[in-house]
Amino acid sequence: MQQVYFDNAATTQIRDEVITAMTEVMKTNYGNASSSHSFGRSSKALIEKSRKAVASYLNVSASEIIFTSGGTEADNLILFSAVRDLKITHIITTKIEHHAVLHTIDQLVKDYKISVSYVDLKPNGKIDYLHLETLLKTEKKTLVSLMHINNEIGNVLDMKRVATLCKANNVLFHSDAVQSVGHYKMDLQDIQVDFIAAAAHKFHGPKGVGFAFIRKNSGLKPLIFGGEQERGLRAGTESLHNVVGLEIALKYAYGNLDEETAYIKDLKQYFIHKIESDIPNARFNGKSGNLEKSTYTLVNLCLPIPPKKAAMLLFQLDLKGIACSKGSACQSGSNQNSHVLTEILNEEDLQKPSIRFSFSIYNTKEEIDYVVGVLKEFAGQLKLHGRPHIKNTWC
Amino acid sequence: MQQVYFDNAATTQIRDEVITAMTEVMKTNYGNASSSHSFGRSSKALIEKSRKAVASYLNVSASEIIFTSGGTEADNLILFSAVRDLKITHIITTKIEHHAVLHTIDQLVKDYKISVSYVDLKPNGKIDYLHLETLLKTEKKTLVSLMHINNEIGNVLDMKRVATLCKANNVLFHSDAVQSVGHYKMDLQDIQVDFIAAAAHKFHGPKGVGFAFIRKNSGLKPLIFGGEQERGLRAGTESLHNVVGLEIALKYAYGNLDEETAYIKDLKQYFIHKIESDIPNARFNGKSGNLEKSTYTLVNLCLPIPPKKAAMLLFQLDLKGIACSKGSACQSGSNQNSHVLTEILNEEDLQKPSIRFSFSIYNTKEEIDYVVGVLKEFAGQLKLHGRPHIKNTWC
Repeated sequence: MQQVYFDNAATTQIRDEVITAMTEVMKTNYGNASSSHSFGRSSKALIEKSRKAVASYLNVSASEIIFTSGGTEADNLILFSAVRDLKITHIITTKIEHHAVLHTIDQLVKDYKISVSYVDLKPNGKIDYLHLETLLKTEKKTLVSLMHINNEIGNVLDMKRVATLCKANNVLFHSDAVQSVGHYKMDLQDIQVDFIAAAAHKFHGPKGVGFAFIRKNSGLKPLIFGGEQERGLRAGTESLHNVVGLEIALKYAYGNLDEETAYIKDLKQYFIHKIESDIPNARFNGKSGNLEKSTYTLVNLCLPIPPKKAAMLLFQLDLKGIACSKGSACQSGSNQNSHVLTEILNEEDLQKPSIRFSFSIYNTKEEIDYVVGVLKEFAGQLKLHGRPHIKNTWC
Repeated sequence: MQQVYFDNAATTQIRDEVITAMTEVMKTNYGNASSSHSFGRSSKALIEKSRKAVASYLNVSASEIIFTSGGTEADNLILFSAVRDLKITHIITTKIEHHAVLHTIDQLVKDYKISVSYVDLKPNGKIDYLHLETLLKTEKKTLVSLMHINNEIGNVLDMKRVATLCKANNVLFHSDAVQSVGHYKMDLQDIQVDFIAAAAHKFHGPKGVGFAFIRKNSGLKPLIFGGEQERGLRAGTESLHNVVGLEIALKYAYGNLDEETAYIKDLKQYFIHKIESDIPNARFNGKSGNLEKSTYTLVNLCLPIPPKKAAMLLFQLDLKGIACSKGSACQSGSNQNSHVLTEILNEEDLQKPSIRFSFSIYNTKEEIDYVVGVLKEFAGQLKLHGRPHIKNTWC
């Protein structure tokens, strides 16, 4: 059976070169990087080489990169320590952040009685910058946490604008950049964000490793206590092969960035055109149908299919070997709607199946033809060729 | 140059079979285990298979195994949540626990104003069980945290005895079992410990993965918040290849346990005999010179060498390609003494170099001959053949 993997925003296939490097490290470098003997020193040297490489891609110092077990841990480290150690009492965020941010903030509210302000969103999921500016006029010790690229709808934050606003208001700024590191160039000397979180498995690296960028002299302290690894900011024996895997994945991601971006962007454009021509009453959620205003890696498609048929659509996609991510009413294995779509869709559209298709260099236009063909066939069987869906412009 | 790796308590060489399995998983199973499509389901199935296997070795339920990024994170998860969510106000521990426990407790004292009691130790590092019993007679909501095998001196806790005492006193019991899982059979139906922590890289598995055993209905909550991975107890995309690596490493560890234990025990015995015959005024710290009362995997050797010569010894060992771990005055790259030896040695012995040699199936008697030869030659050069060291029996 044909298998199509269009769920690259969830995780990506690991590059062969990454696997090769990781396997080699596992075979030959088994010293503990905290050990002072030669086995340990060579492991330590590999980690520091990786740290320098990662730092160079973001134009920061090696000492500002702290390796973690992934993006979620990096978000938790930054948010927890900002409240506990930097005495943040107020967090400004949105209701469409990743759960790694939202659920962590929920816990911080319980543990530290901090207050939370949510920036208003436009119907397309864009943040209301004027509202953000208003929220920033506060006496409270504040941190802003806004993700760079929304993982469900692909909206891109103007990180530099937010960083500048935060600086002007003497407020700290954290950005979950899990969907953008490895996909977009990022100069963190130019963008004065204080903290970002990233994960290797989103850019063809291994699962279980990521990093926190923590700007120098931030005063952050660990989330996980014990040994003095990661300059005392993250205890636990380093996952050497995973760190090297992250480095190699990022090397390829940034080394081939222009051509790979062009290739994937072309796939997305092709997907959008195919949908517009074959299923004209489908709509794209957020800004994901706009090639210039959303990430080139994903679309979030709201299909003109009755709620009752949503489960059948998912079953059909699965049967046809198509891997994609379900938001909205059709979240498989869950009765809960996507918290992101809940914020931006009206009640009626929220009942329809919304599906995220996300692309990578390993995808092809033939796969898009196949997938859109399956969607079209399904919609056709339902005889949904009638009245175009005009109720709103974002779904 | 000959290289001898005698630092297996710090970390171990990864088994070839583990690397092969991990490489295969990285190549073929790249779905996110949280995704509901076929790529995700096959990843999820692998993780659950690993969980069942790990649980079966400890005679517990799969739902009681929570995969983490290592032993340190597992210790942090258990200790933090015990205080925050189970409202523990008092921890009983010792001063010779791993820093993953001690530094976490230090933080809990700061954050939650809990009180800490340290069990008295005998001169050989053994805990004073009577003192523990006294400490357990408390009205405070208490957790005991005592490691199963001490990583520096190899002392083995009677985990069943402590578990029984804790049960009788209605007190929770956590044990850092990082040095024992994969090295000792453990039936956690028989031993009523509430929580344990383990790390794959201590039993020839990959670095960056471990697990917490959390007994059913414990009420623990996450350390890292976000997605619903690990039954809601540990957010973050699972490190699939690492989890599978842990499983395979544990399969081989327990599958070959009797013969491998016998092999390593024989190495340790040989090492002890060689030292006793070639450097008679050397002593073993803790109980590590007693084959029956300490783990079969390590010795901690106090050498009759003046403090001023300690650095030269370390330099010499390194020059000869010998990897071992330095405690006491000779901690390389650090002026701090080992916190474990500080507790059990007198001032004079603390000034002498103490070195941990820890063994695995990949070591040989020829390597021991080589290492003891180097030690003997060094001691000989110093002309330390004189008066035997009789000040105490543990160093």
